[in-house]
Amino acid sequence: MNQPQKDPKREKAYDCWLAYRRLEDSVANRYQAICSEIVVMGQSAIMDMAVEELKRGLGGILGIEPRILYGSADVRALALGMDIECLAIPVKEVEALSHDGFIIMGQNGGILIAGKSERGVLYGTFSFLRSMQTGMSPDTLNRIENPAAGIRMINHWDNMDGSIERGYAGNSIFFRDNQFISDKDSVRDYARLLASVGINGVSINNVNVHDQETRLITRELLPEVALLADIFRSYGIRLYLSINYSSPIDLGGLSTADPLDGTVQDWWCQKASEVYSFIPDLGGFLVKADSEFRPGPFTYGRTHAEGANMLAKALEPFGGIVIWRCFVYNCQQDWRDRATDRANAAYDHFMPLDGEFKDNVVLQIKNGPMDFQVREPVSPLFGGLKKTNQILELQITQEYTGQQRHVCFLIPQWKEVLDFETWCDGPGSTVKNLVCGKVYPQKHCGFAAVSNIGDNANWTGHILAQANLYGYGRLVWNPDLSSETIADEWVRLTFSNDPEVIETISKILLKSWETYEHYTSPLGIGWMVNPNHHYGPSVDGYEYSAWGTYHRADWLGIGVDRTVATGTGFAGRYHKPNAEMFEDMNKCPEELLLFFHRVEYKHRLKSGKTLIQHIYDTHFEGVEEAEKFRTRWLSLKGKIDKERFDAVLERLEIQIRDAREWRDVVNSYFYRKSGIPDEKGRRIY
Amino acid sequence: MNQPQKDPKREKAYDCWLAYRRLEDSVANRYQAICSEIVVMGQSAIMDMAVEELKRGLGGILGIEPRILYGSADVRALALGMDIECLAIPVKEVEALSHDGFIIMGQNGGILIAGKSERGVLYGTFSFLRSMQTGMSPDTLNRIENPAAGIRMINHWDNMDGSIERGYAGNSIFFRDNQFISDKDSVRDYARLLASVGINGVSINNVNVHDQETRLITRELLPEVALLADIFRSYGIRLYLSINYSSPIDLGGLSTADPLDGTVQDWWCQKASEVYSFIPDLGGFLVKADSEFRPGPFTYGRTHAEGANMLAKALEPFGGIVIWRCFVYNCQQDWRDRATDRANAAYDHFMPLDGEFKDNVVLQIKNGPMDFQVREPVSPLFGGLKKTNQILELQITQEYTGQQRHVCFLIPQWKEVLDFETWCDGPGSTVKNLVCGKVYPQKHCGFAAVSNIGDNANWTGHILAQANLYGYGRLVWNPDLSSETIADEWVRLTFSNDPEVIETISKILLKSWETYEHYTSPLGIGWMVNPNHHYGPSVDGYEYSAWGTYHRADWLGIGVDRTVATGTGFAGRYHKPNAEMFEDMNKCPEELLLFFHRVEYKHRLKSGKTLIQHIYDTHFEGVEEAEKFRTRWLSLKGKIDKERFDAVLERLEIQIRDAREWRDVVNSYFYRKSGIPDEKGRRIY
Repeated sequence: MNQPQKDPKREKAYDCWLAYRRLEDSVANRYQAICSEIVVMGQSAIMDMAVEELKRGLGGILGIEPRILYGSADVRALALGMDIECLAIPVKEVEALSHDGFIIMGQNGGILIAGKSERGVLYGTFSFLRSMQTGMSPDTLNRIENPAAGIRMINHWDNMDGSIERGYAGNSIFFRDNQFISDKDSVRDYARLLASVGINGVSINNVNVHDQETRLITRELLPEVALLADIFRSYGIRLYLSINYSSPIDLGGLSTADPLDGTVQDWWCQKASEVYSFIPDLGGFLVKADSEFRPGPFTYGRTHAEGANMLAKALEPFGGIVIWRCFVYNCQQDWRDRATDRANAAYDHFMPLDGEFKDNVVLQIKNGPMDFQVREPVSPLFGGLKKTNQILELQITQEYTGQQRHVCFLIPQWKEVLDFETWCDGPGSTVKNLVCGKVYPQKHCGFAAVSNIGDNANWTGHILAQANLYGYGRLVWNPDLSSETIADEWVRLTFSNDPEVIETISKILLKSWETYEHYTSPLGIGWMVNPNHHYGPSVDGYEYSAWGTYHRADWLGIGVDRTVATGTGFAGRYHKPNAEMFEDMNKCPEELLLFFHRVEYKHRLKSGKTLIQHIYDTHFEGVEEAEKFRTRWLSLKGKIDKERFDAVLERLEIQIRDAREWRDVVNSYFYRKSGIPDEKGRRIY
Repeated sequence: MNQPQKDPKREKAYDCWLAYRRLEDSVANRYQAICSEIVVMGQSAIMDMAVEELKRGLGGILGIEPRILYGSADVRALALGMDIECLAIPVKEVEALSHDGFIIMGQNGGILIAGKSERGVLYGTFSFLRSMQTGMSPDTLNRIENPAAGIRMINHWDNMDGSIERGYAGNSIFFRDNQFISDKDSVRDYARLLASVGINGVSINNVNVHDQETRLITRELLPEVALLADIFRSYGIRLYLSINYSSPIDLGGLSTADPLDGTVQDWWCQKASEVYSFIPDLGGFLVKADSEFRPGPFTYGRTHAEGANMLAKALEPFGGIVIWRCFVYNCQQDWRDRATDRANAAYDHFMPLDGEFKDNVVLQIKNGPMDFQVREPVSPLFGGLKKTNQILELQITQEYTGQQRHVCFLIPQWKEVLDFETWCDGPGSTVKNLVCGKVYPQKHCGFAAVSNIGDNANWTGHILAQANLYGYGRLVWNPDLSSETIADEWVRLTFSNDPEVIETISKILLKSWETYEHYTSPLGIGWMVNPNHHYGPSVDGYEYSAWGTYHRADWLGIGVDRTVATGTGFAGRYHKPNAEMFEDMNKCPEELLLFFHRVEYKHRLKSGKTLIQHIYDTHFEGVEEAEKFRTRWLSLKGKIDKERFDAVLERLEIQIRDAREWRDVVNSYFYRKSGIPDEKGRRIY
C-alpha cells in the first residue's frame, strides 16, 4: 500500500479528472473554431493560472494552441476577465454573481468566462473545460454559478514524519522525515486538482498536533509553510494550520495555556502577528481540543467558548478565523456504564455555548454524533446551534468505509446528510441550508472534509476513490447536484464519454455505499471493526473498550437504547418530529434501527424478515454485489487503459475477499450468539 | 513501563538476589571465623570471578575483607580450586562430580569449594554464598551438585533498535539505535546474575532476525559481538546468535538459500569460519525457520533436517551447535477450517524427521503445542522424538501471563511440565528425564527460556518477576527442586530471612499462577487476549483470526474437539495411557478440559458445578485472590524497604484493576452468549 512511487506522473491515474483527453467529434470542431484565440482581460497570479489551464485544456481536448491576447472582449473568441462592466454583461446577471461565482455566456459568437474575482474566473475556466470534456455543446454553456458557501475546505491529517493518520494512499505530499519535501510538484498538481472543483481552503497538518507539528508556527518552520501557502494561493486556496492548544507551554515556555491568563493571551497575539508576517492571508487555525488526549481549555476549568475566543481575538486583526472541532467526548468510558452515551457528547458540550463564540470562530461538526461510521444519524448540533458559525465535517478518507481498498462512493451518504431536514426552523431547515447560512445568519459557514490523498501515484490508492475527492468539491460548491450527476461527470472526465463506460462505472459507484453497508455493520450500529487500524471485521472489537462504542449484543438481541423513555436520551436531542421518529421503534428509519433501539433477533422488520434473517441476508447479498462489481468491471476490458483497468480490478478482488470475511465473521458471530439458523440454510460457521 | 532509568544501580532492586545483605547472628559469627582467609588453588579468568564474588559476598554478608592466599588447601580457611587430587577429596566424591558440578565440604575445620572445571568452582562459590545468605549453618553445607543437563540457556528476543519483542521491562541492555551499547556494566552485572544460578548459554538477539540483526555475523559487527562474548565467557557463559536463514541471499548476494545448493553450503562454511575467528567458543546458532513469515528450507522444498544439517556441518569443525526451533505452524489458517489444528503442527512437522538430524543439531521444543499460554498440555514431541537431541523451551517473559504487571510465579507451571509422565519408555519417562538425556541418549540436551529482563532499574519490571529468572536457573540446574524451596530461597536472598516475610511473599508467589489462571482464560482454552500485544482480555480477539487459535464458543458451549474419535486427532499424538486420558472427556484433567473437548455450558464438572458456573466462580475468585495479594503485601509494611515495597504495591494495584477487567469481560461474554445467569446473582454486565 505505502510504497512510494518513483515517478508518479508517468502513471495514467495521476492526472485524475484533469487528463484533458482528446475529443474528435462535431462538438469539438465547434469549440476549435471559437477557441483558437483567448482574450484575457485583467491580469493576476490566479488569472495566469486560469490562462495556463485553458492552454493545457484546449491543447489536450482539442489539440490546439490558442493565441493569447490581452485586451478587450470585443472579439469572436474565448474571453475571460474580471472587469464585469467592460464585458457588457447584463446587470441582472452581474447582480446574481457572488464573490467566488462565475458566469459563462455566449457573446458575439464567442464565449465569455467572467467573475467578480480572479478566483471566480479560475472556477469558471475549470467549469468551462469540464463542460467541453464531458461533451456539452457550446450552445448549452450559458450559466451563472455561485458556490453554496464561503468555506470549502480540505483537512489533512498529515504528520511531519511523513505518515498520514487514517491515510490509505501512501505518505504525505507535504512532509517527510520531519522536514518539508523540497520538491513541490505534487503540491502544485494537488492545488490544481482542488481548485478545479472549487476548494478554497486547506489545512496541511493533522488535527492531532504532535511535537514537531507544534513547531509549524515558529520562525524556524514558517518560511517553509509560506512556500506551501504561495502555491495554494496561486490557485485561490488559503492555507490553514492545525495548532496545539498548549503551544504557550510547549513553545513559549509559559507555565500555563489557560485562555483567561493574560500572558497566554499576549503570547497568542504575538504569535498570530508573527505567523501573519510570514503568511498574510493565512486562513486561520484549526483546533482539536480536549479530545482523545489533546490539551484544551478543560485543563484550566474553562469552556470551549473561552478557549476558542481567546485564539479568535488573536487572529481577528489579521482576518483569520478559528475553526474549532466539536469532536469532544470521553474516550475513557467504562463499557459497563450504560447511562453515559458518546452520541450525546458533542451536543451536550456545545449546545450550552451557543451564542458565546466570537464571530470569527467556526464550529466544525462531524456529520454524525459518533465518528464517520458507514451509517449514522445526523448530528443534532445541526439545527441545535442557532447563533454559532458552523461547518459540516465529512471524511473523504475511507477510515470506516473500506480504506480505499474497497470502492465506496460517499456522495450518496453525504447527500443524505445534506438533505436531512432538522425542522429547527420549520421545513427547509436542512443541513445544507444550515451550513450554507440560509437558515440562521452566519458570518462564516460551509464545509470541511478529511483528505483521502497521499503520495501514491494515483493519489487515492483506489482509483475509484478519486471520485470522492472530486465529488466532495462539486457537492460543496453545489449541494443540489445529484449523486448521479457527479458520478456521470467524474466518469466522463476520468475515463470516457462512452455510454457503456459511464453506465457501468456509475452503477458501481452509486451502489457501492449500500453494498459496503450490506456486508459490514448492520442497521446503523457501527463499530464492528478491528481496534486501532479499523480495517476488517471484529464484532466485539470495541465492545469492551473505553471508546464509548458498543452494540450490547447478547443471546436475545442487539442495539443501543438511545430513547428518552428508557435509554440514554439521545433521541430527544432532535427537534420534533425527528425526536419522535427516532424515539419510536416503529417509526425509526430502519437503517438506523440499532442505533436508537435495542431489538430482539426475532423482531420482524417492515420487510417481514426477522432482524437476524435481515443480518444474514444482507451479508450474503453484500458479497454477491461486490462480486458483481468485478463482473461489471471486467465488461469494460479494452475500453479502459490496461494500467487503470488492472489497478481497479486488483482492488475489486481484494474487496470480494474481504467482503466474504466480513460476511462470515458477522454471520457466524450472530449465529453463535443467537443459535438461530439461517432460514435459507446457507453456510455459517 | 519503558522509561529508561538514569542510574539503575542506585535502585535497591537492581541487585536482585545477590544483594549480600549483612547477617548478624551466631551462624554469621561461625562463618566469620572460617572465612577471614580464602585459599585459592589454580587461576583463570573464571576463577578470578569466583574470588571476586567471594570477596563481595563475604564483605556484604559478614562485613569482612578476607585475605586471599594462593597455594595449597591445607589450611583452616575457605578454600577453592579445581585441582581435585591436591584437594584430598575422596575418590567416590570425585567420581560423582560432572564437568560443571561442584563439591562443598568441610575439611580441616575450613570449607572447601571444588569443581573439575573453573565453571564448577564458580557455581560452587555462588551456591556457598547462597547457603550463607539464607542462613544455613556451616555444618550442613556438605554436598555434591551436578547440573541436570548441559544446555542451560537464555534466549533474548532483543532487536538492535533497542526494542525487545515481548519485553516488559524496558529496552535491551545490549543494543540501542541499531548499535551496540558501549557501556557494558549492565551486561556484566547480568552475566553475574545468570552465572549465579548456573546459566551457561545466552543468545543475544531475537529469533525473528530482521535486517540489521542479520548483519551480526558480518565483519562489521562481529568485533562488537566478541566484546559481549568476552564478558559472558568470564562468567562461564557461551554466547549464541540467532541467524537469518536467508543470510546467503541477504548478506552473500547469492540467488538462493537452498540448503542443498553447494554455493550456499560453502557460503555458510566460510561464514562459520569467519564467525569463529572472532569468537572461538561461540555456542552456535539459534534458528527460527519457516515460521511466522521467517525464511527457511520449505522455500526450497527441503526438510527441516536438510535445513538444519547444512548449518550443523558448517559449525561442526568449531564445536558449534545448531539449535532449531520446532515452533513451526501455518499462521495463515482459515478460522472456518475446523480440521486443521495448530496443536498438531510441530509434532507433524518434526516426528517424521526423528533420527535424521546431525548430532550437533538440537531441537528446541516449546513446553506446549500452542504458545506459552497460561495452561497447555505438554508438547507430544516430548516422548515422541527418540533419536533427536532436544531441549525444552520455556518463556520467562510473561507474554501471556500478565506481562510483568501481574505477579505470576511460573515455577509451578514449569514443574508440571517437567514432571509430566510421557510414558514413552515406561514409567519415569518424564519430560525432565527426557530433556536431561536420561531416557534416550542425547549428545546435547537441556533447557532454554526466553528472557524477562530489560533495562528497567529492577531488570524485570515487576520486582517479583525476578523470582522467575532466579527460579528458571535453579530449576534447570536441579529439576527436582520444589517450587516451595525455590520461592523460599529467592525471598530469603532478595528480601529477608524473617519468617513472616518469607511466608507472606512465598504464599503470594505460589498462589499467583493459579490466580492468574482463575481470572483469565478457563480450563486450558487459552488465547482470550487482545491481538498483537496480548495484554488484557478480548475473548474473541483471536477467534476469527488466521493464527489457528480458536475457542469455538457459541450459545451452547465452548472448546476445541481434539479427540481422535470426532476431533482434530491431537489427543492421539500422545502415548498411552495419556492418549486415552485426553481422549475421554471424563478422564481428561479438568484444567485442560476445553483444550481437548467441546463442552456444553451446562455440563457438570467433578466439583458438581456446571461449566458456566465454574467460569463465573473462578473469575470472581481470581479477583478476590488478587485483592488478597495486596492485603498480604500491605502486612509487610516496614519489613521491606520503602522503595521496593511501593514498587510492588503499585503493580499489585494494577493487577487488581486488570483482574476486574478480565473478570467482567469474560463473565459478560459468556453470560451474553449463553443467557445463563450466575447462580449467586453477582453483577455481570
